[in-house]
Amino acid sequence: MKFSVDSKGVYPIAPTPFLDDGSIDRKSIDRMIDFYNECGCTGLTVLGQLGEAPKLDATESLDIASQVIARAGDMPVIVGVSAPGFASMRSLTRDVMDRGAAGVMIAPPNTLRTDDQIVTYYTQAVEAIGADVPFVLQDYPLTFSVQMSPNVIRRIVTDLPSCLMLKHEDWPGLEKISTLRRFEKEGSMRHISIMVGNNGLFLDYELERGADGANTGYAFPDMLCDVVRLKEQGKRDEAHDLFDAHLPLLRYEQQPGAGLAVRKYIMMKRGIISSAAQRRPASPMSELARLEVDNLMRRLARHDPRANVAG
Amino acid sequence: MKFSVDSKGVYPIAPTPFLDDGSIDRKSIDRMIDFYNECGCTGLTVLGQLGEAPKLDATESLDIASQVIARAGDMPVIVGVSAPGFASMRSLTRDVMDRGAAGVMIAPPNTLRTDDQIVTYYTQAVEAIGADVPFVLQDYPLTFSVQMSPNVIRRIVTDLPSCLMLKHEDWPGLEKISTLRRFEKEGSMRHISIMVGNNGLFLDYELERGADGANTGYAFPDMLCDVVRLKEQGKRDEAHDLFDAHLPLLRYEQQPGAGLAVRKYIMMKRGIISSAAQRRPASPMSELARLEVDNLMRRLARHDPRANVAG
Amino acid sequence: MKFSVDSKGVYPIAPTPFLDDGSIDRKSIDRMIDFYNECGCTGLTVLGQLGEAPKLDATESLDIASQVIARAGDMPVIVGVSAPGFASMRSLTRDVMDRGAAGVMIAPPNTLRTDDQIVTYYTQAVEAIGADVPFVLQDYPLTFSVQMSPNVIRRIVTDLPSCLMLKHEDWPGLEKISTLRRFEKEGSMRHISIMVGNNGLFLDYELERGADGANTGYAFPDMLCDVVRLKEQGKRDEAHDLFDAHLPLLRYEQQPGAGLAVRKYIMMKRGIISSAAQRRPASPMSELARLEVDNLMRRLARHDPRANVAG
Amino acid sequence: MKFSVDSKGVYPIAPTPFLDDGSIDRKSIDRMIDFYNECGCTGLTVLGQLGEAPKLDATESLDIASQVIARAGDMPVIVGVSAPGFASMRSLTRDVMDRGAAGVMIAPPNTLRTDDQIVTYYTQAVEAIGADVPFVLQDYPLTFSVQMSPNVIRRIVTDLPSCLMLKHEDWPGLEKISTLRRFEKEGSMRHISIMVGNNGLFLDYELERGADGANTGYAFPDMLCDVVRLKEQGKRDEAHDLFDAHLPLLRYEQQPGAGLAVRKYIMMKRGIISSAAQRRPASPMSELARLEVDNLMRRLARHDPRANVAG
Repeated sequence: MKFSVDSKGVYPIAPTPFLDDGSIDRKSIDRMIDFYNECGCTGLTVLGQLGEAPKLDATESLDIASQVIARAGDMPVIVGVSAPGFASMRSLTRDVMDRGAAGVMIAPPNTLRTDDQIVTYYTQAVEAIGADVPFVLQDYPLTFSVQMSPNVIRRIVTDLPSCLMLKHEDWPGLEKISTLRRFEKEGSMRHISIMVGNNGLFLDYELERGADGANTGYAFPDMLCDVVRLKEQGKRDEAHDLFDAHLPLLRYEQQPGAGLAVRKYIMMKRGIISSAAQRRPASPMSELARLEVDNLMRRLARHDPRANVAG
Repeated sequence: MKFSVDSKGVYPIAPTPFLDDGSIDRKSIDRMIDFYNECGCTGLTVLGQLGEAPKLDATESLDIASQVIARAGDMPVIVGVSAPGFASMRSLTRDVMDRGAAGVMIAPPNTLRTDDQIVTYYTQAVEAIGADVPFVLQDYPLTFSVQMSPNVIRRIVTDLPSCLMLKHEDWPGLEKISTLRRFEKEGSMRHISIMVGNNGLFLDYELERGADGANTGYAFPDMLCDVVRLKEQGKRDEAHDLFDAHLPLLRYEQQPGAGLAVRKYIMMKRGIISSAAQRRPASPMSELARLEVDNLMRRLARHDPRANVAG
Repeated sequence: MKFSVDSKGVYPIAPTPFLDDGSIDRKSIDRMIDFYNECGCTGLTVLGQLGEAPKLDATESLDIASQVIARAGDMPVIVGVSAPGFASMRSLTRDVMDRGAAGVMIAPPNTLRTDDQIVTYYTQAVEAIGADVPFVLQDYPLTFSVQMSPNVIRRIVTDLPSCLMLKHEDWPGLEKISTLRRFEKEGSMRHISIMVGNNGLFLDYELERGADGANTGYAFPDMLCDVVRLKEQGKRDEAHDLFDAHLPLLRYEQQPGAGLAVRKYIMMKRGIISSAAQRRPASPMSELARLEVDNLMRRLARHDPRANVAG
Repeated sequence: MKFSVDSKGVYPIAPTPFLDDGSIDRKSIDRMIDFYNECGCTGLTVLGQLGEAPKLDATESLDIASQVIARAGDMPVIVGVSAPGFASMRSLTRDVMDRGAAGVMIAPPNTLRTDDQIVTYYTQAVEAIGADVPFVLQDYPLTFSVQMSPNVIRRIVTDLPSCLMLKHEDWPGLEKISTLRRFEKEGSMRHISIMVGNNGLFLDYELERGADGANTGYAFPDMLCDVVRLKEQGKRDEAHDLFDAHLPLLRYEQQPGAGLAVRKYIMMKRGIISSAAQRRPASPMSELARLEVDNLMRRLARHDPRANVAG
């Protein structure tokens, strides 16, 4: 169950629950972590891109990470430590590792372009946080404008033994997973865990390409867990049936920028968190959008009763 | 049925069919245009981003446009004339308008940033092609890196009466359509046709927000036509059911870069074109990807018999 | 002498002096501030882009700002507070304002594209830091990839009364200054201070276009002060002669990325700071580059004896 | 004197002279080519980024290239063939090679990011134009947003024997030249000609780092020729003196976007071309800008009598 190159399953990206007045909703944090545990999640990630980390001050960030780690029990907790400079990355890393984090996740700054620049950045990041701190490499070109070729990922994995997991969110990304797994088979790259992000939009086929699971925040992590499990059990059609039933809603939640509001709204409707509030600046959700999500859930409920919620 | 601010329905983005040796497949062009006509398409667009226009020389481009226009009959034909300079944009525009095109489509060069730069670019483009040539404004930030706010679109529509249609491919884009339709209702912008692109990934809800139809290349334009028609007839659930059945495949085809190979492969399987060949440089389709598409079509065929194809 | 819309003269961007072991060189900070004072600088900016702010942890940043403010005496001190989120921007702003800063400088995040996005960002930033905190608007497209048209600057200046100064580093930028000053003359924008950055590469003509001075880090702030003074005295040719003598070196220091090493090397040679050390990750300076700077200074010393330094 | 990996000296980037009515000024083309010849230029480049190539239609482009080639006599002529697609790149290349061009110049499309993407692009371009056509690799990140590391350049040079010259316009770029020349010394890269662009802003030190000359359009190519010659003769200080005298004007002309108007204005004042007209869309030159250039030339004339022109 620990965080390693053999990690499998689902590591949800946890949102940060707020009360309507903007204060941190500590009760919802506990409820959400318990929910992840009950779903069968094998780990989780906090303070990521969609955890509204930039809207938290340093004390709050550490408090949240601490509460999550304490509540998570056996589930390893990864903490997002991406920062504009290595000084703050290092200090946040030290603080959360001291409190029991299993590792950290590092996204590339969006100024990186060449292969060498990307490899150098991660080399320096590891130098800053310490080579003993396990880290997740986040590959998300759509958001960070940084394109990592399979060769670059191989160089990072080879040069930096503390890289244990790839959060794969390239798009299109199916061939990339195949290429990385081929590198492993050929012996030109050591094995790492590959967990898919991008709200799981291609989870169905990414698992067949060699992904180990999902590391993303879709508001039905229980569905993600089911799909991973069904695939493992060889129940391919059942996995696709379940995934396809969720796809209309999942696609809606995956919209960049607008997605977090949708995610929190669904999690609130499901009773996982008590409010959909975001801290400012928030991307608001219009009344029409709420009606659209209600409709999507109503339609989903015909196939998955978990979507059958009041409200 | 002519191209105007009141255009509705489906204008497919036509691919350019090639034979396996890279020569233009003129028979498939005719068959494809006939197919569009039989589907109930209300117009079509050629030489767009996914029509492999940059791989054609000037003579070929004009030949294809001419053949399409001749075959299209009553369907108005829009021709993509985006070019690195206004000289070639003007000369291609004149040539295709002479041959009977209904209008042209212009995408922004990806160096534009500020609102003023975007408005100025379209002003100069209209100056170049002539204010009497109807044009489609292509708003596709994901591909062109140019972000047009609703205000910018309103300025272009207001300043340039020859702008008749918006090819809307912003993502997320639902609120944008609502905003533009609100501008019209308020009287601050004249009415234009809004057709959605982006492979129709949000067609289901974009129609409800006020879009007039689709201007995109999904390999089942007949489904797009059906969804538009069902919505018009008030059969909302039927429209969603049909759309949702296609969504797993549609999403797969929507992958940037990789999508054209998928589209041509499906159109070949459906018998619309005789080969999936692309001219070089092509984004190839792996054997695994073909198997995935086969599986997606097999699953789709349970809901839509049109996907039940041999091969 | 206070920071206001009428600020003129030179506000150097102060580097952060380090000892060779990477610790903060407090003695050099005092010496540097005294030097700025003796040169006739009218204010200064700390923790900017080239102050290696991201390499400092929160405590160090605040310590440096406090020391600088205490030492600066009558010179108003602006503190760079650009941050990935408003929470840290607010907390740093509060801390430095409490310690006597005159205001803060805010750069745009490089994800902003449309005019509305830029205006909204600054509106939210002011909401976060408080409308009573004077701020400098940094317009530096080359580094931040954000292009602010004159209209956008006018909207920000109009909407946000706490915007007192523009750090103008657009390139080309001469016409932009003329346009902004024309806005003021026409009465469509209130007056603000415009200080030029970009290492002062066009200071000579930017002053004639209406700039009030320089807000940049060239290693000869005394030259910048002289040029501003000579222009004010109407000694145009003398101003150009002095500026032109510095231009070969100034251009060399203005190289993006590589420039900070050059700047610190020159300041060390001039005895202003005791070491040219940068914290890691540093852009190193090759032996050849050092010889080139030595040659540039030797050549400059023929015209400006201040470049005649041992070492 | 032919175009080869041993090319040295100055290859100006020729502007396209227009008459005030926008028609091509054929007399000025001849006069300009003769002027380049008399200056001692060793070759030249036409239809480049600053040759307003996108404003020419296909016939005009070919006519201009033909006239230039005919007039250039012994000077090898390179033709810019960058295009959005390989089809038009190939056809323009064939046409100009047939008419006697010495080679072509290819800039990267600004969508390229990873090392592999860049190498693949040039591989495909060579496939399109033919491996027997000598080409210049244009490395200009500021304009094209494509960053080529020294490793990428080495891969291209190694894989593609028809790459004879690097038009080096990276900025900063001094260390890059040193690295490439070190690769050659180490035997890990074959020798190629390196000519600097970027208006020659660092020509003085780039020559000392190993550049072979300049491939840029500064309005005083005679100065560029002199500086290259003086350096070759070991007259280092004289070379710097001459270069430094031009630097204030050269920097002014180097402004992106605005620079072409300045260049044409100076060339007109020097009597090389008869009009400074640009085809639309043009970046205009304000009256203030003209006065600034007049002043810069007046000041330059004190050191270089060639700047002493009437008008």
